Amino acid sequence: MKFFELLQVDSKVLMIFIPFVLCGCTKEEEVSTTTTDPLANLEWIDLSYAFDSTTLYWPNNPDGFQHRVDAEGVTDLGYYYSSYTILTPEHGGTHLDAPIHFYENGETVDELPLSKLTGKAVVIDVSEKALADRDYLIDSVAVLAWEQEHGKIPAQTMVLFRTGYGKFYPDRKGYFGTAKTGTEAIPELHFPGIQPETALWLAKSRNVKAVGLDTPSLDYGQSKDFAAHQALMENQIPGFENVANLDQLPATGIYVLALPMKIKGGSGGPLRIIATVLE
Amino acid sequence: MKFFELLQVDSKVLMIFIPFVLCGCTKEEEVSTTTTDPLANLEWIDLSYAFDSTTLYWPNNPDGFQHRVDAEGVTDLGYYYSSYTILTPEHGGTHLDAPIHFYENGETVDELPLSKLTGKAVVIDVSEKALADRDYLIDSVAVLAWEQEHGKIPAQTMVLFRTGYGKFYPDRKGYFGTAKTGTEAIPELHFPGIQPETALWLAKSRNVKAVGLDTPSLDYGQSKDFAAHQALMENQIPGFENVANLDQLPATGIYVLALPMKIKGGSGGPLRIIATVLE
Repeated sequence: MKFFELLQVDSKVLMIFIPFVLCGCTKEEEVSTTTTDPLANLEWIDLSYAFDSTTLYWPNNPDGFQHRVDAEGVTDLGYYYSSYTILTPEHGGTHLDAPIHFYENGETVDELPLSKLTGKAVVIDVSEKALADRDYLIDSVAVLAWEQEHGKIPAQTMVLFRTGYGKFYPDRKGYFGTAKTGTEAIPELHFPGIQPETALWLAKSRNVKAVGLDTPSLDYGQSKDFAAHQALMENQIPGFENVANLDQLPATGIYVLALPMKIKGGSGGPLRIIATVLE
Repeated sequence: MKFFELLQVDSKVLMIFIPFVLCGCTKEEEVSTTTTDPLANLEWIDLSYAFDSTTLYWPNNPDGFQHRVDAEGVTDLGYYYSSYTILTPEHGGTHLDAPIHFYENGETVDELPLSKLTGKAVVIDVSEKALADRDYLIDSVAVLAWEQEHGKIPAQTMVLFRTGYGKFYPDRKGYFGTAKTGTEAIPELHFPGIQPETALWLAKSRNVKAVGLDTPSLDYGQSKDFAAHQALMENQIPGFENVANLDQLPATGIYVLALPMKIKGGSGGPLRIIATVLE
């Protein structure tokens, strides 16, 4: 098994450098003719909820997710055929916030380069405090405590906060703090989010690539001005909301692919986000 | 640069096996304390078209892609905010066909495991014949000719056919063979596709994981019964249609991630498909 893994290493690199580094040899030796393939045996974890009638949208959203049947059954020619049309607000379920969602000069979802949507990630578990206080704000103290244990967050890392609220999804009352819908529900939203100053600090002092979490919003439920969104998006940093299964990831050694539907001019959109554990 | 690449190799593997393989050493030496990360410097190529008013759907589709403005501008509180709602048939633009699209017992798009949506891929270029004949059917002769040059397609490979028709997208006449829309356009569709017998042979004799191409359909424009779809989907093999940028990929040594929007019970859906070149 380990020998097989070895064969996946770039053979040119092995050929030229390994002998020198490890043994001081200078002769170039060919190790393997097997195709380079560091990815062959990766196992991916899905961090995305499916879209259906239970998908959670902001309480005052009138539409929700709609799945219209266009065809479903055996055709006149004798074969089965099914096809549907979907309608969804960009922001609901597991989705991406593009910078233009809160910043006029921000990138739209289709403009985000793949380099901003792929890369190393860390998971910062704040669930103990977040589950104890529905209005908890993730602050730099929590991030610095994490760094004490795991080291400074490297530049261009995706930061995923685990509040533990994913366990409530898709129960509206547990997840949002109120089962009400409509505009009158907004003042009753209680779920944790990122302190705006900390969002700015993550952008400026940690140069993060993206920020995601297992709540409906980067900002906490009681936010009026969505200042954490503003701080991130003015720095062209996308957000991932309603991220699933964060309890399945370790704190470090994660590679994430966050691929939103490529909506021209979109302020965000349905996101398929997956991860693999590297170590 | 090459030394830097070396540092990304799994240090445990290097430590234990490289000395033995290359130099006959038995002593375990530590090469690097750098985190394992075979993925760090991967460059991803986007094989997805953006969704907008020019997105191509089947000629008789009445809806097309709709992007409704819900909010766009400076709010009363002084910050910018934009948000939209989308409507799209599942099958249009760059999208996935789930097996249930043509097979009643087939997997729905949300049921497809990530192992079926990620993995090694090959590109079979049939553009010379396809561009010369709008009704060209990709047959096993074409696949076997490719295998003569590149070797037998390994089991569980994703096969991407490059017909060259991507160069017409989103020009309806060039891509579909007719600029007409509505039911009356259907008999006038002329674009290449996969011969049904070859689709079945790919499923049974090559055990392919998925099949994609740069046309509107796995079946050619003149198909009445979509028999290539049926052959693949009865074998639980998903399809990718309207795949972009296949001219940017080599024939082999490709890793593909094909992440559709996770629509519960969906017969397919918008697909973000990306690739990296391994060798």
